[in-house]
Amino acid sequence: MKNPQLNRHGELIHLLSTEGLPRAILTQILDTAQQFVSVNDREVKKVPLLRGKSVFNLFFENSTRTRTTFEIAATRLSADVFNLDIARSSTAKGETLLDTIANLSAMAADIFVVRHSESGAPYLIAQHVAPHVHVINAGDGRHAHPTQGLLDMYTIRHYKGDFTNLSVAIVGDVLHSRVARSDIHALTTLGCPDVRVVGPRTLVPSDLSHLGVRVCHSLEEGIRDCDVVIALRLQNERMSGALLPSSQEFHQAFGLTPERLRWAKPDAIVMHPGPVNRGVEIDSSVVDGVQSVVLPQVTFGIAVRMAVMGIIAGNEA
Amino acid sequence: MKNPQLNRHGELIHLLSTEGLPRAILTQILDTAQQFVSVNDREVKKVPLLRGKSVFNLFFENSTRTRTTFEIAATRLSADVFNLDIARSSTAKGETLLDTIANLSAMAADIFVVRHSESGAPYLIAQHVAPHVHVINAGDGRHAHPTQGLLDMYTIRHYKGDFTNLSVAIVGDVLHSRVARSDIHALTTLGCPDVRVVGPRTLVPSDLSHLGVRVCHSLEEGIRDCDVVIALRLQNERMSGALLPSSQEFHQAFGLTPERLRWAKPDAIVMHPGPVNRGVEIDSSVVDGVQSVVLPQVTFGIAVRMAVMGIIAGNEA
Amino acid sequence: MKNPQLNRHGELIHLLSTEGLPRAILTQILDTAQQFVSVNDREVKKVPLLRGKSVFNLFFENSTRTRTTFEIAATRLSADVFNLDIARSSTAKGETLLDTIANLSAMAADIFVVRHSESGAPYLIAQHVAPHVHVINAGDGRHAHPTQGLLDMYTIRHYKGDFTNLSVAIVGDVLHSRVARSDIHALTTLGCPDVRVVGPRTLVPSDLSHLGVRVCHSLEEGIRDCDVVIALRLQNERMSGALLPSSQEFHQAFGLTPERLRWAKPDAIVMHPGPVNRGVEIDSSVVDGVQSVVLPQVTFGIAVRMAVMGIIAGNEA
Repeated sequence: MKNPQLNRHGELIHLLSTEGLPRAILTQILDTAQQFVSVNDREVKKVPLLRGKSVFNLFFENSTRTRTTFEIAATRLSADVFNLDIARSSTAKGETLLDTIANLSAMAADIFVVRHSESGAPYLIAQHVAPHVHVINAGDGRHAHPTQGLLDMYTIRHYKGDFTNLSVAIVGDVLHSRVARSDIHALTTLGCPDVRVVGPRTLVPSDLSHLGVRVCHSLEEGIRDCDVVIALRLQNERMSGALLPSSQEFHQAFGLTPERLRWAKPDAIVMHPGPVNRGVEIDSSVVDGVQSVVLPQVTFGIAVRMAVMGIIAGNEA
Repeated sequence: MKNPQLNRHGELIHLLSTEGLPRAILTQILDTAQQFVSVNDREVKKVPLLRGKSVFNLFFENSTRTRTTFEIAATRLSADVFNLDIARSSTAKGETLLDTIANLSAMAADIFVVRHSESGAPYLIAQHVAPHVHVINAGDGRHAHPTQGLLDMYTIRHYKGDFTNLSVAIVGDVLHSRVARSDIHALTTLGCPDVRVVGPRTLVPSDLSHLGVRVCHSLEEGIRDCDVVIALRLQNERMSGALLPSSQEFHQAFGLTPERLRWAKPDAIVMHPGPVNRGVEIDSSVVDGVQSVVLPQVTFGIAVRMAVMGIIAGNEA
Repeated sequence: MKNPQLNRHGELIHLLSTEGLPRAILTQILDTAQQFVSVNDREVKKVPLLRGKSVFNLFFENSTRTRTTFEIAATRLSADVFNLDIARSSTAKGETLLDTIANLSAMAADIFVVRHSESGAPYLIAQHVAPHVHVINAGDGRHAHPTQGLLDMYTIRHYKGDFTNLSVAIVGDVLHSRVARSDIHALTTLGCPDVRVVGPRTLVPSDLSHLGVRVCHSLEEGIRDCDVVIALRLQNERMSGALLPSSQEFHQAFGLTPERLRWAKPDAIVMHPGPVNRGVEIDSSVVDGVQSVVLPQVTFGIAVRMAVMGIIAGNEA
């Protein structure tokens, strides 16, 4: 099956998932982002790469934080950004998703940034947009959140240099996490030999092992000698059902405390996609500790989103 | 009575309605828009015509689609755009409409784009703004939606060249439609000799004939040998009362199907202001068919709004 | 105690309150604003002073009017403005205020404009932001609204020239008014010898006299021979309790009518922070009368906010 993210020259035209992206593309994104980090480094903050281009933020599911990071990234590329309050718009008047998309395409859009509660919605949109429009998935259901995955890769590379000798543990609510999926696919492609998913059986099903990861139901086993520990947010709002652990139960067994963090390597970095539930999946002293790179992740996230937009806008369908 | 849309030199200073606009002004808008269509044609997308000017979107009634088209148009003219969430603002604190307008004028606004549920509100505003402020009606009650009317004229001229030999049918909920009113006034002024309004008696009252149009209660009679068929949206949300047809009843008698479209000329174009109710006023196969120009209407709509803003901002009260 | 608004050179780095600002800083702001008023005077409207800088509007309490004036001011300085719908954002997901602030700082923000229902919130934020971020208080609880205070000073200076011979009366709901507090501190520092607070005992407690103002419970005594009368908005939405006057009672005793205004000097100016309750704290004929400078206040407000942003962005923590 043709990869809808690439054109016939193998160039990136949509970013829908880290799954199926070749290592060369991942590396191109990280290298490009690196140029913008110096831009973000408070010297030159804006570049004219997308001057005159129109970026539409289409958030069918509300997310102020993610929307803002895309708005900032696009603005720093000198693009014009239009935020559509989709929930209150024509879709509410019975217009179909594809008609909404066709109409917005006709307004000479260049990039759609799409957040949707249903897995696969950005794929559907990418299949139907006019050839001049590029689609970026900003999170679809439980499926994927590729720019978060890419900023995690950027952060790991920034602090650890290379993926081919690393042990990375992803701890927590892997079952509901599009971040975990995006991280796993990217880590595997980039050559990381030891990726572990760590949590209770209800949140980390054994059948995840088909993804090429090691499933651990003990935190100690899961993060032992790791270089990178990625704590996931416990998504209380997505969880339901009597079998799932309470916040307290989760913290007791898998919460990342300073004591437990010593199971990892002494120079291990601690990551989290935010927003953090202090005292649930991670202790305050770990969030604010010297091993935490949670805030650099945010800064790198702007640069990675700039890179993705800059690259796809330069490639033709 | 003085036309509040024109200054003493007969130049356009506000766009409140297509009614009362001289043919020369209508033609000036369409000619100016034509320049921006090549701009929109993905070569040069922005022009600096309104650089440093401030456009305020004042939507007392929510309409994401229309607001966005004005925001895009103003941005492509290099204006600064400010979207005011009027429903949540000072008017909710008991401030009068005219006080709100006076305050915004004092912020050095250049253009107010006004959508209001009450017919005439943009006129009231235009009467009271400071001399440096220009008002554009983005839809007031059932009264007028002049930029939609103008983009319809642009679309017709684009595909048919000239108005003086055309038959144009407007089909559907004419009674509740500000689009229909704006189209009728513009078509008449531009010299279109045969304008028909088509629909059931409950939606197309006979007394519309005073507008110089032919009233038809049969779809076959209404669109026979037409050059242009404009299908209106069935505004379920505006309709109430036992006498009005259901969606199914309307579709059965007046829905535009491929078979019925053959009553019109073979090269007739089909238009719709959007958002489309597929299967109600128009069949999916017609919306997506070769005669449909629904998406070009959207593209032309940006250019027409650019033209209106560019023209009025250059004229003094 | 160190003044958190100033750096070790005594330069302004945050604007949290007019309290504690030296006269030299107040004068610097007013002088700088004066340059932008000519800019606002419809000749050159934009200056590139903050090009490439990012201003974040963080409105934890909704205020379309104030948010818009800051957005306009920042845009006219050529900054990029990001409006965060904080009420719907991560804070709703249980993120702490300081984590939200830390995350936004990491996105390379330059200025946070903060409106919060709790007094002191902008101070807390200013204490915790990264050194490159400047904080402007856009109103915190009943505490302070310093840019309103500064625009009031600008207006007074514009019309009266100098503060050292003036009598200024602040009339109305002083108890709940952050505007009154900001005005009083600024007037005192600028050398105004006669500041009076005027209203019923329930809204103007006697213990306000510690602020160096004269407390008057009679309107006639309060505004007699004044040069400036500042009418405050009766904040119905903030008032509760059986002891407080109704709108009618307030108007009967303290409403500013043309007859009563004659108690003040013949050339006294009348100010109001808006939005006005016509017929409650002030009569329509006074709002619209020749002594009213309510709309110039709005225009000057843009210039003052431009001045504050321009000054703080140029100073290092």
